[in-house]
Amino acid sequence: MAERLYGGIEAGGTKWVCAIGTGPDDIRAEIRFPTTTPAETLGQAIAFFRAHQPAQLAAIGVGSFGPVDLNRASPRYGSITTTPKPGWANTDVVGALTQALGRPVGFDTDVNVALLGEWRWGAARDCDVAVYITVGTGIGGGAMVGGRLVHGLIHPEMGHIRPVRDPARDPFPGICPYHGDCLEGLACGPAMKARWQTPAEQLPPDHPAWELEADYLGQAMATLLCMLSPERIIIGGGVMSQPQMFPLVREATQRWLNGYLQHPRILANPEDLIVPPALGARAGVLGAIALAMAAAEGY
Amino acid sequence: MAERLYGGIEAGGTKWVCAIGTGPDDIRAEIRFPTTTPAETLGQAIAFFRAHQPAQLAAIGVGSFGPVDLNRASPRYGSITTTPKPGWANTDVVGALTQALGRPVGFDTDVNVALLGEWRWGAARDCDVAVYITVGTGIGGGAMVGGRLVHGLIHPEMGHIRPVRDPARDPFPGICPYHGDCLEGLACGPAMKARWQTPAEQLPPDHPAWELEADYLGQAMATLLCMLSPERIIIGGGVMSQPQMFPLVREATQRWLNGYLQHPRILANPEDLIVPPALGARAGVLGAIALAMAAAEGY
Ligand SMILES: Nc1ncnc2c1ncn2[C@@H]1O[C@H](COP(=O)(O)OP(=O)(O)O)[C@@H](O)[C@H]1O
Ligand SMILES: Nc1ncnc2c1ncn2[C@@H]1O[C@H](COP(=O)(O)OP(=O)(O)O)[C@@H](O)[C@H]1O
Ligand SMILES: [Zn+2]
Ligand SMILES: [Zn+2]
Repeated sequence: MAERLYGGIEAGGTKWVCAIGTGPDDIRAEIRFPTTTPAETLGQAIAFFRAHQPAQLAAIGVGSFGPVDLNRASPRYGSITTTPKPGWANTDVVGALTQALGRPVGFDTDVNVALLGEWRWGAARDCDVAVYITVGTGIGGGAMVGGRLVHGLIHPEMGHIRPVRDPARDPFPGICPYHGDCLEGLACGPAMKARWQTPAEQLPPDHPAWELEADYLGQAMATLLCMLSPERIIIGGGVMSQPQMFPLVREATQRWLNGYLQHPRILANPEDLIVPPALGARAGVLGAIALAMAAAEGY
Repeated sequence: MAERLYGGIEAGGTKWVCAIGTGPDDIRAEIRFPTTTPAETLGQAIAFFRAHQPAQLAAIGVGSFGPVDLNRASPRYGSITTTPKPGWANTDVVGALTQALGRPVGFDTDVNVALLGEWRWGAARDCDVAVYITVGTGIGGGAMVGGRLVHGLIHPEMGHIRPVRDPARDPFPGICPYHGDCLEGLACGPAMKARWQTPAEQLPPDHPAWELEADYLGQAMATLLCMLSPERIIIGGGVMSQPQMFPLVREATQRWLNGYLQHPRILANPEDLIVPPALGARAGVLGAIALAMAAAEGY
């Protein structure tokens, strides 16, 4: 019998990435395309899976931009719900894929799914409690406890916690339409661009922007360590690809905790605590393949 | 064969409560005594369990003040570790009880154990993700995901997150020896007393202290809902026994979220989200009995 293959979809607000395979060292085909309308975007994903070994496709996993409905008892389970992205509110992603491809479909947030990939094949393999944060166009986070991704009432929305801001140091009011100066409002890529009037990737490494950015992210790390005590916090996204950022964020985390949490991984080895994704930019689509594997087993 | 009974210890920094039974409606004996030295305090607990049906005692559960070591692979598993409480640092609670009583001993933080009691018999019974916060002499929190209490690197220390403080409204710098104005530093019972120069229980219900207190706790609720998306947040402790506080905290939570999390339980029914312990002041010792039941089964 031909081997089973698994489909993964990293369903982003800007682009979708689809892949088929069995893991990081076995990707048979991959495609990426811009996110346009639901019909067009879902259509391209469906066409890809129909074109590549459809008989061997055991299941599909999707890590989606949100907010999403993860409550299996809800009539809107499997949908992107209240997103402001035009045309995408109340898009039944699981319904569309199930109907078109006739396979089990796993569905979760983009950051939960990236964390699943890191837990299966990457930096969270040995963890009981782990967190994945992305700092890019927005800020979001996923969490896992004992092998279970955190859902709860809706799902985590970690970008909307409120850091302490010193208006003398940072008079920028923040760009979140709901909160102004929540974490996303102060520290996502577009917030950096608005504050400094320059795209983040064009700010030189020694620009004061980076210490301020690390200060906000360090607060978020300290808050996470106090709330959930994760053994590892993985940070992805374009902003953290700047080489100076991980050392700055680790140091800011220690500064905000000020020695209260007495664990060697915090006090002496933060490079083992706050880390980039081991799977790099592939964490999302590989996590989606991991989610497909779980869906194929009935989870 | 005589029925199995379970022992619970709420091991607080101020007092210990010990009980034997099988649940909220079946407590055979109970005792409380002040926390003095480890030898004396553990001695009184041991004497209590030896005096009441020791042959039927299947296991003991302990919910302890901390920080504690919950890592079963650690040589200090089952100890209170780095507490500033004089005489109590590195106290091997599980070792002492195991040696004296020869039964399995379950061990976790006081707030995790109170949450376990509420999950088994109280306000968290139907929850996949739930949180228990205490606001009393200190502020602490426990969490559960999918039936598992959150441990991770150490265990949650939710009292040490940093709220936003407006120095014009609240010039009080906070009493936390590590952080000054962390949540505990601003909002525990002794912080209220220091700020207002009056014990919290003597402040009249319409005193501005309560709106300020609710503002800080509402921020913590909003942070929890963004980080963990709990289906229920149970708040215990002396400060929340003030009747005006639950409505004030629910309203402050909504204000800080400002509509971002679109769920009816947040927007319309916060009285179903942010609640007092159904087991009242017994949540701790009953949770310890629930923990004993798990220990008896080998967990
Ligand atoms: N190398 C970089 N250095 C700094 N900022 C970057 C870099 N790459 C992307 N960004 C910023 O991150 C944002 C895009 O986030 P990214 O994680 O790349 O994608 P997305 O969030 O859309 O998935 C943009 O605001 C951009 O300015
Ligand atoms: N009814 C009350 N109203 C307001 N504050 C109270 C009340 N009861 C106790 N407190 C405050 O809570 C703190 C004691 O917390 P409590 O939860 O009762 O015990 P503990 O934290 O020691 O377990 C004290 O600072 C006290 O001022
Ligand atoms: Zn926001
Ligand atoms: Zn503190």
